Amino acid sequence: MLEKTTRMNYLFDFYQALLTQKQRNYMEMYYLEDYSLGEISEEAEVSRQAVYDNIKRTESMLETYEEKLHLYEKFQQRLTLINELEAVIANKEEKLFFDKLNQLKELD
Amino acid sequence: MLEKTTRMNYLFDFYQALLTQKQRNYMEMYYLEDYSLGEISEEAEVSRQAVYDNIKRTESMLETYEEKLHLYEKFQQRLTLINELEAVIANKEEKLFFDKLNQLKELD
Repeated sequence: MLEKTTRMNYLFDFYQALLTQKQRNYMEMYYLEDYSLGEISEEAEVSRQAVYDNIKRTESMLETYEEKLHLYEKFQQRLTLINELEAVIANKEEKLFFDKLNQLKELD
Repeated sequence: MLEKTTRMNYLFDFYQALLTQKQRNYMEMYYLEDYSLGEISEEAEVSRQAVYDNIKRTESMLETYEEKLHLYEKFQQRLTLINELEAVIANKEEKLFFDKLNQLKELD
């Protein structure tokens, strides 16, 4: 469930601009502010079932957008590449440093 | 016109997964394969006006997606940052190189 919540938070982050205001409200209350379905239904003055159906439909829409645009997947790939790049740069400097150090030693 | 074509090609690239097959076909023929509206209407056996309306509607959808998701804008920002990063790394290595060179000189 925690894993699904994390995923939904990310998908919501990437695709919320494509949702209606009502969908955004329910998703924010349910996933970001941790309201229960019952609490949302009271707040919105609709049935618990209506809230549930709307959230399920929205989740499915977010997954469909992700299947088509892969924004979350690309974000994760980009993050991995950035971390690898950081490591490569760190290592390269280290290598340069040790190259120079070895050359200095060889001169002695 | 060339600028608009370039922009439409990029927007099409980023958002084509959100279009219908017919929209994709018309956009590909018009923007990628340089068919005229008349040639597309012959090929698709619909009126020239129908093709024109469909393409205009699709262009407007692509712009709306861009207003909401900014994928092309972010792509350009990312490209700028990557180029800056490349320059920074190149300079940093050069600096390291000359630091070492100066130290070597100071030892003589």
